[in-house]
Amino acid sequence: MGTNVEQKAFTIVENGTIVTPRGFTAGGLHCGLKKTSRNDIGAIRCDVPATAAAVYTTNVFQAAPLKVTRESLSNGRLQAVIVNSGNANACTGQQGEEDAYAMRTAAARELGVAEEDVAVASTGVIGELLKMDAVHSGISGLPAHMGKEEEEAEHFSQAILTTDLVKKEACVAVEVNGKTITIAGAAKGSGMIHPNMATMLAFMTSDAVIGAEALQRLLRQATNHTFNMITVDGDTSTNDMLVAMSSGLAGNEELTVEHPDWKAFAAGFTYVCEVLAKAIARDGEGATKLVEVQVTGAVSDESAQAIAKTVIGSSLVKSAMFGADANWGRIIAAVGRAGQPVNPETVDIRLGDISVLAQSRPVVFDEEAALAYLQTDTVRIVVDLHHGKGTATAWGCDLTYDYVRINAAYRT
Amino acid sequence: MGTNVEQKAFTIVENGTIVTPRGFTAGGLHCGLKKTSRNDIGAIRCDVPATAAAVYTTNVFQAAPLKVTRESLSNGRLQAVIVNSGNANACTGQQGEEDAYAMRTAAARELGVAEEDVAVASTGVIGELLKMDAVHSGISGLPAHMGKEEEEAEHFSQAILTTDLVKKEACVAVEVNGKTITIAGAAKGSGMIHPNMATMLAFMTSDAVIGAEALQRLLRQATNHTFNMITVDGDTSTNDMLVAMSSGLAGNEELTVEHPDWKAFAAGFTYVCEVLAKAIARDGEGATKLVEVQVTGAVSDESAQAIAKTVIGSSLVKSAMFGADANWGRIIAAVGRAGQPVNPETVDIRLGDISVLAQSRPVVFDEEAALAYLQTDTVRIVVDLHHGKGTATAWGCDLTYDYVRINAAYRT
Repeated sequence: MGTNVEQKAFTIVENGTIVTPRGFTAGGLHCGLKKTSRNDIGAIRCDVPATAAAVYTTNVFQAAPLKVTRESLSNGRLQAVIVNSGNANACTGQQGEEDAYAMRTAAARELGVAEEDVAVASTGVIGELLKMDAVHSGISGLPAHMGKEEEEAEHFSQAILTTDLVKKEACVAVEVNGKTITIAGAAKGSGMIHPNMATMLAFMTSDAVIGAEALQRLLRQATNHTFNMITVDGDTSTNDMLVAMSSGLAGNEELTVEHPDWKAFAAGFTYVCEVLAKAIARDGEGATKLVEVQVTGAVSDESAQAIAKTVIGSSLVKSAMFGADANWGRIIAAVGRAGQPVNPETVDIRLGDISVLAQSRPVVFDEEAALAYLQTDTVRIVVDLHHGKGTATAWGCDLTYDYVRINAAYRT
Repeated sequence: MGTNVEQKAFTIVENGTIVTPRGFTAGGLHCGLKKTSRNDIGAIRCDVPATAAAVYTTNVFQAAPLKVTRESLSNGRLQAVIVNSGNANACTGQQGEEDAYAMRTAAARELGVAEEDVAVASTGVIGELLKMDAVHSGISGLPAHMGKEEEEAEHFSQAILTTDLVKKEACVAVEVNGKTITIAGAAKGSGMIHPNMATMLAFMTSDAVIGAEALQRLLRQATNHTFNMITVDGDTSTNDMLVAMSSGLAGNEELTVEHPDWKAFAAGFTYVCEVLAKAIARDGEGATKLVEVQVTGAVSDESAQAIAKTVIGSSLVKSAMFGADANWGRIIAAVGRAGQPVNPETVDIRLGDISVLAQSRPVVFDEEAALAYLQTDTVRIVVDLHHGKGTATAWGCDLTYDYVRINAAYRT
């Protein structure tokens, strides 16, 4: 399945991690917030204060760490991120807020950076207070575990996972004025599952020279086309957070929207977001496959986005994908209830390259070929509305017995 | 679980059916549209032209019968409804439209009513043309099967079912100026399932004297608080249709909004809608229980409706209900993403009478009592936002292994 962003503009760095861009170290360890011995606290540190940007959950209920991170980010600068898993520090009131500030203070002290340059993120169970003894002992131990090696980046990546089955990482290189800029990211998230909400967290690092406003704008744009276009079950967490930091150590001319290499940088940045987002969708709880929905011919890109998200979010479509069922009736029904302008007479639907509906009329297709295609681990649903020039792509996964098992089995 | 409408205003007619109100006959038989020998065509007929009203699916893709019914209803009058199951006559183009008109013509002829007084409804697979031979033979046979007996109403009810496990019927009596008015309804629907879309159809009969505009207004209001507040999986069909007919044979003073007994009539009418809607929710595919979400303290009723529907539509909440898991974190997360004004500090959540969240903080509750309550077949989630006076109730069901089995197993 091809990516949506121009690939020629950048090169993929195999085995690149969040410490590949110049200036970053990372690490993680187990401090006792998870019941298992898996890592549950980690940090990313930049050698210099980095330009920074972030986007947060739109949920009305926002966990305490988000408040602290917003405050730190108000000057567009960060030098470190401290993250714990095992406890989301959400619905924890005044004490939770004090704990999030205490995490920031301890991380700043141990990592040797200014308090207002530290972001805080948490993921795990909600409604329980953080065990601050464990948090403090973990943070004290972090400096000895921070480094620039692949292994140390791996320890960080493990520290942010909860029920994720696989790590999500990506790294690319872009040429800007003959300087090589590296962009990397690490993410976690597999739907809102056990232990309560599997928050989506993503951390991006880069060594580009770029202003905070330009980085914020790019992060928001890229998020709108990637992280905001995935759905596992439509639920959003109180703790979702994406943070980007750019060290500036590549020494390029400052990247602005007017810079001739802006498009290449934006393409590389967006590609990293897309790889992480698709990895989260594929790792959705109980999922057996990645499902991609491409909508073309909508009245606008926004309209195409709304339709693509309605299709990918349909429990009936998701169940059909699990059953490898070429059930175009469910797809067209989802298109029709998205609340968007659609000409009911001009819709085409394809499953991969197999046409199943043309001009809103059923097409006789090879059922065996369709079954074989839908049994692969990556399925593309293409909807062409022939009603405008808007396009969008959304990603999700199938709805399986395991989804129900995982989500019905919690706590009881 | 109590109903939302004032019960004193009307009395429930046990074993009442759509032929209980004066003037109506009904019937159904098997004509060959279903592969089994179950009934697949049926009709309701009124002795006199009846005041009529209808609401239709909001899906952009509307099946051919809806066009025909809209046309018949343009004068606010109907004398018969012809319904088939086994084939939805949707996505069938020009031929489908001609077939729907042919169904209307045949029904008018055989039932001895004017063509423009016949509504047409279909449910079943989409994208296939109706077998018109079977339809015509069925309609020819109908007059001999029409009657006022409970058995004949039952034959009609069976003819509109697809994968429904149980018939959905309700009947009440209301006093208006000392005259007894009867209101009844029959419905089908259990989510959009095999054979493709289990359309929601509901037919209401009454013998009240009432104008078409007043009936239309009441039907829409009642629908907004009942049928529009249920969700099985969030998907809507191309064929959903609710039709109400009132014969006027009770001989009461014409009911208008100003009539002193209007409230009683509206309460009875809404009660019938609510019973049918809840029966559909409880019969959702794979469901083991009815889930009711009551939202109070929202800024408006509309806001409360949006929040209630987001909670009842959450796959995570539905899975938790299947697992009898008192997982308030998922409930509050759904409340928070509904896009409605909420004070994040003042939310209470109860499961039945068990308080699990008060003023947005976790409450220590009796886990065993909560488990026992959530294992019953009717569960109520109460969300009090303490943020206004808006209230709403929504109904749905749990998300189970059987939902996935039913929906993944179709066609393949």
